[in-house]
Amino acid sequence: MPLPDQQLAGMLSARDAIEGRLEQLLASPTGVPPNLSAALRHALLAPSKRIRPLLVYHVVEPQDAQIAGALDLGCAVEMVHTASLILDDLPCMDDAVMRRQRPTTHMAFGQATAILAAIALLSQAFGILAALAGVDDATKTRLAAELSAAVGWTGLVAGQELDVNERASIVAVDGIERLNWLKTGVLFVAAARMGAMLRGLPDEEVEAVGLFASHLGLAFQTADDLLDSNATADEAGKDVGKDGNKTTLVTLFGEQAALLSYREHLDKAEAALLQTRVNAPPLMAMIARLFERRETPTP
Amino acid sequence: MPLPDQQLAGMLSARDAIEGRLEQLLASPTGVPPNLSAALRHALLAPSKRIRPLLVYHVVEPQDAQIAGALDLGCAVEMVHTASLILDDLPCMDDAVMRRQRPTTHMAFGQATAILAAIALLSQAFGILAALAGVDDATKTRLAAELSAAVGWTGLVAGQELDVNERASIVAVDGIERLNWLKTGVLFVAAARMGAMLRGLPDEEVEAVGLFASHLGLAFQTADDLLDSNATADEAGKDVGKDGNKTTLVTLFGEQAALLSYREHLDKAEAALLQTRVNAPPLMAMIARLFERRETPTP
Repeated sequence: MPLPDQQLAGMLSARDAIEGRLEQLLASPTGVPPNLSAALRHALLAPSKRIRPLLVYHVVEPQDAQIAGALDLGCAVEMVHTASLILDDLPCMDDAVMRRQRPTTHMAFGQATAILAAIALLSQAFGILAALAGVDDATKTRLAAELSAAVGWTGLVAGQELDVNERASIVAVDGIERLNWLKTGVLFVAAARMGAMLRGLPDEEVEAVGLFASHLGLAFQTADDLLDSNATADEAGKDVGKDGNKTTLVTLFGEQAALLSYREHLDKAEAALLQTRVNAPPLMAMIARLFERRETPTP
Repeated sequence: MPLPDQQLAGMLSARDAIEGRLEQLLASPTGVPPNLSAALRHALLAPSKRIRPLLVYHVVEPQDAQIAGALDLGCAVEMVHTASLILDDLPCMDDAVMRRQRPTTHMAFGQATAILAAIALLSQAFGILAALAGVDDATKTRLAAELSAAVGWTGLVAGQELDVNERASIVAVDGIERLNWLKTGVLFVAAARMGAMLRGLPDEEVEAVGLFASHLGLAFQTADDLLDSNATADEAGKDVGKDGNKTTLVTLFGEQAALLSYREHLDKAEAALLQTRVNAPPLMAMIARLFERRETPTP
């Protein structure tokens, strides 16, 4: 799907705004140990597509008074995501050396500082929610509950635990889709739902936006597995081929079936979004752009 | 200071209530991986004095309708504290094998699950704040901001970063007191201030309660350093003597001077508390009981 110039311009400017705001949020108060501060910048300001904050932003479609809140909410989600990447890359987990075109945080700063940077980002994310400009306290409370559930013992943490300690025993499609959900879907869904809450959408539209993001997340994880089996580390910007001994949709059914599943999830994502007042084209265009390279993996 | 029977009974029952509530909060919803769930129970339900939740409880001095909120707030603080212990004990940090009379979490469950348990506890703590019974959303927001600041890059995380990577270069009393503040005081202060906020005390009393807890935390850390230099591992329930190559008030000025500093901080703590409507005797009695053993280290 080609991108109309106007949509592309809107997307780029939202991304620039997100980058600028992330930078501001890391311009920390005095008292941050310099080594920790450097690690935070290394991890959070590395090249990234910023999918989750863009997802938040395009779900909110903020008017002027809501722009600051939409950006900060997106940055909070990006901090949580970055924290999860730092931890996933640790020697005791995926033992990765490259991430986002850079050495992983523990390679650059040591494991202790990497872990502390992850904790700082996670904690700061909740602090940002509590300080969102122009958002009432009831909504802030709802956002905190949503984010906590997405991260915690039935969310990202559960996904990583299963990935590290139980992946070997997962051999059926149900188990893989649950794992994909927990590793990726759960934060996509939380990001989108939080955007819908910030926008003040009624509950049934919050649900539909969540369903959209759920399918988006599953499509994304499948695309990631396809990328892992095809790309070079240079193309991916991170370690690849590490999943060779893990069961994924790709290893289970092959690339063609995985690609089919990926496309089905994208279709379902679009269908769910059309049940809401969220303007679909910018989001679908964003997704098309993200996956453009992935749909035709280069050798 | 001997404890009147009534105060002792009140303290024990608050502690029992805290233990019971921690247990309930870990009776997690379906979907928590069993290995993670076991690690959470291992870390959080290990024998502990529960100083921080007791501190919250005695600052709130809850009437019936506030008891549930005071207990949950205390449990949230205890989860954050436990998360920090799990991480501090990791091989890349203090490399400890025993904690709270048990093998450290990474010794029992591996590093990956230990780190994930810490993240789950931290995340859940913010979830608990968002769900506090009988607390208005404005107060919930204020509590979340306070906890986030206490944990993050100018709080516990900064303290641990300095302890791991800069302790060797800290040789002066100012640096040590700042480190003690970040490692212990900051969460004591947050716990006490959050209790004061939950109780609805005016800002100047929230400040005074924070000052009380600040001195309490410094006294506690000094007592811990004294304990480390004196006790056996069996008495302490954790690794001891690991600080031999670290600069503490004990190594810098000797045990007598450290003991003097400890008592001065306790006096200042009491003086600050007397500026508030918080009933001092139960808190001072709790403190006396905690430090009873520490003041007269056994050989």
